[in-house]
Amino acid sequence: MSAVANMIGCLYGVGLGPGDPDLVTVKAAKILKSVPVIAFFAKKGASGRARAIFGPWVSGNCRQLPLIYPLTTEVHLCDPAYAAQLRAFYRDAAGAIAAHLSAGEDVALVCEGDPFFYGSFIHLFLRLKDRFKIEIIPGVTGMSGCWSAAKTPIAWGDDVLSVLPGTLSHADLVRHVGESGAVVIIKIGANLAKIRAAVGEAGRLSAALYVEHGTSDAQIIMPLCDKLDGRAPYFSSILIPGQGRDA
Amino acid sequence: MSAVANMIGCLYGVGLGPGDPDLVTVKAAKILKSVPVIAFFAKKGASGRARAIFGPWVSGNCRQLPLIYPLTTEVHLCDPAYAAQLRAFYRDAAGAIAAHLSAGEDVALVCEGDPFFYGSFIHLFLRLKDRFKIEIIPGVTGMSGCWSAAKTPIAWGDDVLSVLPGTLSHADLVRHVGESGAVVIIKIGANLAKIRAAVGEAGRLSAALYVEHGTSDAQIIMPLCDKLDGRAPYFSSILIPGQGRDA
Repeated sequence: MSAVANMIGCLYGVGLGPGDPDLVTVKAAKILKSVPVIAFFAKKGASGRARAIFGPWVSGNCRQLPLIYPLTTEVHLCDPAYAAQLRAFYRDAAGAIAAHLSAGEDVALVCEGDPFFYGSFIHLFLRLKDRFKIEIIPGVTGMSGCWSAAKTPIAWGDDVLSVLPGTLSHADLVRHVGESGAVVIIKIGANLAKIRAAVGEAGRLSAALYVEHGTSDAQIIMPLCDKLDGRAPYFSSILIPGQGRDA
Repeated sequence: MSAVANMIGCLYGVGLGPGDPDLVTVKAAKILKSVPVIAFFAKKGASGRARAIFGPWVSGNCRQLPLIYPLTTEVHLCDPAYAAQLRAFYRDAAGAIAAHLSAGEDVALVCEGDPFFYGSFIHLFLRLKDRFKIEIIPGVTGMSGCWSAAKTPIAWGDDVLSVLPGTLSHADLVRHVGESGAVVIIKIGANLAKIRAAVGEAGRLSAALYVEHGTSDAQIIMPLCDKLDGRAPYFSSILIPGQGRDA
């Protein structure tokens, strides 16, 4: 057996940032240029938002390994059939990446935003971390992209900042919004009406901003109270800025 | 009056990321290479942590404008003398930057992490936004750098993530740590003993990590319960990972 055959590849968990390809880090761009295999999550039938970000950075020789989610519509996570399907998907995706690593090939598994901040990457990290060398390249989060694009400072001084998944119950949303100086709500989609009602009940509706596709060409920024059509992408977000302290 | 004399410079609020110079974004690196003036915050007598990050990216012709904080030790913000001194500092710093912008020079005001996430940049943004064009370049936050370096996924699924300044009262820290799935505590410094007691009282001490200088050469990562010397830099942080959902 040669030394080369004994070598195991390294898995890079690479954050791609909020959407603008120039908002990847220099380190991420270097890794994307050098790895032989790039893996990314995508929805069935869609080309994948991640691909639009990493496209400018990859070399022509790089092989792409799309990991296609089994479901294209939102199903509530409490549904046991959904959870089982998702577990099987993560198991198979981890297996596909492990095959490349075991063959001695480095793999970059990319994800929008930051890999460890609500990223699907986490599910593969947990399945692969005990068997392979993994390096994490942090990225600019989607929420940083949104508050920068909106020119809205989110938190300073003694502000408590809470990040709330829109999947929380109405009561939990009201409570957390009421107790936090600054709030970012993620995972909007079908939860929009519930979220707007909860933000209103907590008395913060007039300060809330709705941001869709922040930093990309399709960017939309508007007061949440003007967002009345009820349709929102899952990856849009709602920002309620803190007050900071007087200085 | 010539056309050039009428031109007003643009202010770039540039996030430098968590410490490793390669963790600046491609966009930030481009701006740092092109602007004639780079402004940065620093403590009196110190060369400035920001300078260590942007150093590799600036051109030789670029002029540096250090903004030196009036105080080198931590004073409680409730002290009215401190607040007045700080307000005067921000006013003068805004004036120094405005002079360059009014003379038609673009200025990059850099800050570690992300400009709108607990950054001193916010105080200058609020003072300059109505008079000048300002662009915000988001950055990788210090906390993303810390949880990536610690190889610790921070939040996934339905986790609520709360960012808590260590300057909060003991009671507020206990309450927020108890109510959040995932927690990041920032602004540690002299607050370390109070924070450790609060995390313990909330029943989360065994899961908490202490991270100092994440992603830099001086990086230290250890369980918070082993951090017994009581000394911590203001910019260190404490991470309590969430549990995510089962998938």
